Amino acid sequence: MTLVLNNQEIEALLPMADCLPAVEASFRDLGNGQAVNRPRSDMYSPTPHEDARYVFKSMDGSLPRLGVMALRLNSDVIRWRGDGGGVRKSKVPAAGGRWVGLILLFSHETGEPLAIVPDGVIQRLRVGATNALAARELAADDASIYGLIGAGWQAGAQLMAMALVRQLREVRVYSPTPERREAFAAEMWQRLELPVHAVDTPEEAIRGAQILGTATSSITPVLDPDWVPPGTHVTCVKVLEVHPGLLERCALTVVSTRRRSPDSYIVGAGEEALRIHDPRSAIGLDSGAARADEDFDLSAMPDLPDLLSGKVKKPEDPRASTCFINVMGLGTQFAALGHLAYERARSAGAGREIPTDWFLEDVHP
Amino acid sequence: MTLVLNNQEIEALLPMADCLPAVEASFRDLGNGQAVNRPRSDMYSPTPHEDARYVFKSMDGSLPRLGVMALRLNSDVIRWRGDGGGVRKSKVPAAGGRWVGLILLFSHETGEPLAIVPDGVIQRLRVGATNALAARELAADDASIYGLIGAGWQAGAQLMAMALVRQLREVRVYSPTPERREAFAAEMWQRLELPVHAVDTPEEAIRGAQILGTATSSITPVLDPDWVPPGTHVTCVKVLEVHPGLLERCALTVVSTRRRSPDSYIVGAGEEALRIHDPRSAIGLDSGAARADEDFDLSAMPDLPDLLSGKVKKPEDPRASTCFINVMGLGTQFAALGHLAYERARSAGAGREIPTDWFLEDVHP
Repeated sequence: MTLVLNNQEIEALLPMADCLPAVEASFRDLGNGQAVNRPRSDMYSPTPHEDARYVFKSMDGSLPRLGVMALRLNSDVIRWRGDGGGVRKSKVPAAGGRWVGLILLFSHETGEPLAIVPDGVIQRLRVGATNALAARELAADDASIYGLIGAGWQAGAQLMAMALVRQLREVRVYSPTPERREAFAAEMWQRLELPVHAVDTPEEAIRGAQILGTATSSITPVLDPDWVPPGTHVTCVKVLEVHPGLLERCALTVVSTRRRSPDSYIVGAGEEALRIHDPRSAIGLDSGAARADEDFDLSAMPDLPDLLSGKVKKPEDPRASTCFINVMGLGTQFAALGHLAYERARSAGAGREIPTDWFLEDVHP
Repeated sequence: MTLVLNNQEIEALLPMADCLPAVEASFRDLGNGQAVNRPRSDMYSPTPHEDARYVFKSMDGSLPRLGVMALRLNSDVIRWRGDGGGVRKSKVPAAGGRWVGLILLFSHETGEPLAIVPDGVIQRLRVGATNALAARELAADDASIYGLIGAGWQAGAQLMAMALVRQLREVRVYSPTPERREAFAAEMWQRLELPVHAVDTPEEAIRGAQILGTATSSITPVLDPDWVPPGTHVTCVKVLEVHPGLLERCALTVVSTRRRSPDSYIVGAGEEALRIHDPRSAIGLDSGAARADEDFDLSAMPDLPDLLSGKVKKPEDPRASTCFINVMGLGTQFAALGHLAYERARSAGAGREIPTDWFLEDVHP
């Protein structure tokens, strides 16, 4: 039987504390050449929705240690809009008020689809866990104040994971909407039993913080590099949030993966232009912002496996700042957490089932 | 509801005569910049099966005219073995005696998964239809003798499709096993009401034929270029069957797609070597055969959209030979035929259903 889970079930099965070692092992596998990942691709097509595109995103990852292969896909209607100084993307809930993001898990032994599960909670967990792993290695050992820009769902996972790798005394959170940041602070304070304060400006979130995180929907840089004090560890949830100037201020920048930005395929862009790395120009957005793959040469930077294996080390100077760039999702992260959810659901008898027979065939091409 | 079909249902819903226009339209869309395709990728991992690899293959295609996106995947255990002069690959039926190949169809409007269907019959139909479209444009108008190397399932589709674009008088089929070629000839004779003769040597299949096709499981060249008479149209089911010398004999060679060979990601090959284009060396096979992407510069050749739009034309000299290289599957072909099967199944009330709710989420990353 092929297992189907929902996000609520996955959230109950995967506490953040268990996600860190699972994600860490997948990065060690990648570093040891015992895993592979097909970098994300994005395909842009017209959709009947006004001012929007249909975007199909996919990535694959294989983890022989667990005997599983994962395909992660998103089938979205996306709208981009100018919002103050930057550009934000929003996913239209076109599927009757909901969204479509799936992880398909396959067995290396039988080839069979073991599970089909939604990607939402796992996406949140994998980004939080990955950034916390980097912070564990790069932040000051006694870092205790965490400044967070962003108060959404992703920001919550950042905080949950960060609280597992450093003894936080205080969290300062900023987002543009006062109600939103206040609600976030109250909820997380209660959940983590940790002082979480909503602050009125980004500067207030940053001042005095030893760890600084952005977790926003912005596709333009979020942090002014001049704001970042010496000795800070800076994290983000995607490369587009990062201002190139920030890297000049950091003694060490580590990336989640050296593989370059997504391959994008855009209907109407013509065959020669189909494979481009920044879709913003092709969809008519020119934000004047840094183009991630042009401004940063990710391929020359140390990656998370380098950091976990000790190949690169934290600078000894306590005034040296460091940065971790969470470049993009890796199929291997989804394989690691998808497998964990699958194993636990099987033990717990959770989820629904589809006859695997429905997905098998007695002929092959 | 998300529709699930099996191969028997798809075969009944998709006569070859209806597949040709559907596949043709998808190639015209590609040529007009009104479709996009992510080229095939292959990921190689260890598997418990002896002398085998787990291989996950995927490709995506988007057809705005139909409002659908297709992901096609194969989750296979594959074994390669020397067989006489060449190397053949075989798919181990590791899924309890069966195989795993799927097409997932998504809506551009809602993002929802419309259908999950097996890829076997559609794969067969799309290869046959594509080669017949090229032959319709390139073979002699009065071509009536078809020589076929191969007597498998794929060869049958080649013949079914070819009989739709030329008034065939005779078919000569060769494959190494006498029983197999005899059975194939008898079955196809009855099915197409056309003289299909099994012959004892490849040369006999070739001599006097105006259309010549290979449809084998060989990953080394099949045809000796010296055997090919002037004025012949030659087709194949994959680029590895084609001897580079053949192209020198042809006045015009057209490819199904100019995009290069698959991206391969191989566990254990090391990060720098992960993205290679011929997996044979990495898996310890050195057949001495042509490496498709090195010996042929596909990117410089006219493609099927060029041929269908009249941008390239059949040579006027009747003694000029032509060749069509079916490079690899395109997601757009699976989108075209998957959509046709989906629409017809909905009208006919065929198939099984999974609640689409199971694949939707009320949060998004």
